[in-house]
Amino acid sequence: MPEIILIDDPADPRVAAYRDVRERDLVGREGLFVAEGEVVLNVLARSTLCEPASLMIARKRVAGLADLIARLPEDVPVYSASQEAMDAVVGFHIHRGILALGRRRAPASAADMLAGLGEGALVLALSGIANHDNMGGLFRNAAAFGVDAVLLDTDCCDPLYRKAIRVSVGAVLVTPFATAQGDLLEVLTAAGFETVALSPGGATRLVDLKRPSKAAVLLGAEGPGLAASVLARATTVAIPMATGFDSLNVATTGGIVLHHLAFAALRD
Amino acid sequence: MPEIILIDDPADPRVAAYRDVRERDLVGREGLFVAEGEVVLNVLARSTLCEPASLMIARKRVAGLADLIARLPEDVPVYSASQEAMDAVVGFHIHRGILALGRRRAPASAADMLAGLGEGALVLALSGIANHDNMGGLFRNAAAFGVDAVLLDTDCCDPLYRKAIRVSVGAVLVTPFATAQGDLLEVLTAAGFETVALSPGGATRLVDLKRPSKAAVLLGAEGPGLAASVLARATTVAIPMATGFDSLNVATTGGIVLHHLAFAALRD
Repeated sequence: MPEIILIDDPADPRVAAYRDVRERDLVGREGLFVAEGEVVLNVLARSTLCEPASLMIARKRVAGLADLIARLPEDVPVYSASQEAMDAVVGFHIHRGILALGRRRAPASAADMLAGLGEGALVLALSGIANHDNMGGLFRNAAAFGVDAVLLDTDCCDPLYRKAIRVSVGAVLVTPFATAQGDLLEVLTAAGFETVALSPGGATRLVDLKRPSKAAVLLGAEGPGLAASVLARATTVAIPMATGFDSLNVATTGGIVLHHLAFAALRD
Repeated sequence: MPEIILIDDPADPRVAAYRDVRERDLVGREGLFVAEGEVVLNVLARSTLCEPASLMIARKRVAGLADLIARLPEDVPVYSASQEAMDAVVGFHIHRGILALGRRRAPASAADMLAGLGEGALVLALSGIANHDNMGGLFRNAAAFGVDAVLLDTDCCDPLYRKAIRVSVGAVLVTPFATAQGDLLEVLTAAGFETVALSPGGATRLVDLKRPSKAAVLLGAEGPGLAASVLARATTVAIPMATGFDSLNVATTGGIVLHHLAFAALRD
């Protein structure tokens, strides 16, 4: 069980990595990410893809987290800080009093990640998802419906941004993901996946879609959507909507499509 | 076409209703709501349920909104403010430069709203949805899938809160809604609706659900969910999820259920 280290001085160098969390979100986190709250911390503790680097807990919360702390590796420092010191270090009020720094264990490349997936695999492919709420929501839905991996293009934001982790309820920490440098469709096709691309003008209604044996769902950002050059090369699917209000949030769209594919018949 | 009224002094009494928007969100808006942005303003302008009381537009945006302004009733004041005056009045930076105050036209009671719906109607019933993001997302999904009305209980937040309107992309302004004072199930049953209640322990998988001829979908808040006493009296439905991660956002859940019902076969 890790030792509990008391912190009462916000200037204590041992918690320097927690200083000015919001600022670090913007300027780079040096390979670390910030996880908030008990639910996410529990996900981090059981993740095989990520590991905690340290914890900072408001002193009044430490006893309640004893079981979780006991399961952490011996060498993970657990800082028990007064709420005042914690707020002062982080730069804003940490209402829940629970923060962790984590890092990914050696992540696979996009090609290696996809190569490890066989028949029946389901991949979520995201193009240009720049909003952290949407990114978090998409991962949450991916985890709920058993997606095997998430593939991102270089126009996506970082899923390990603090808010994306929080909105994902930790799904970002337990779902394999990788960024492809090139065209997502090419990468998926090369790995033997059939890609279903969502578009308001899609050729097939979602309810009529059968599940390919190795299926990728490709979503673009709300507004611009996917490029015509991409749609021309994929199986395109639409979610018909009420006239005059054809607008769904991209994370909700992902949830609807993944729910359908999770229960749709496999194609003959 | 309304007259354009120039505002350069933040203390101008004609724009007093826009003063300290955030504060008004908290203390009450005297029957008015605040709509932000061009998309929502367009929805407001064509709503039959709500009407604009006035507009405040950053001067540089006025020309681009000429068509919309021309369609407004003659007696709706349109204030063209300098960005500085607008920010000073409102109390924060209005990035998009477009605000409107609106009010609902005489809303129906819950009983009257439901009594007006016949066979094939689809109602979304919400219990204890206190988060404005979720409320907005639920209305957005309701509008996308042609929900006829939204029924709220007294534990729900106000859908006409500024953020809920924004997240709904204006759906709150064009979807009939009413708050029932008592038990939602009783109110729905009295109006001839069969209620489908979502619960992780639901008896039927969503994919197997057929659509009742007058259907209500009942959702509770994430976390507590619906009370056992409610579930005992309704048709309960579950969305099966991957083991170890049985968590969906309530608005996403609503989207998945409404998409299913919009395309599911009617029950024999």
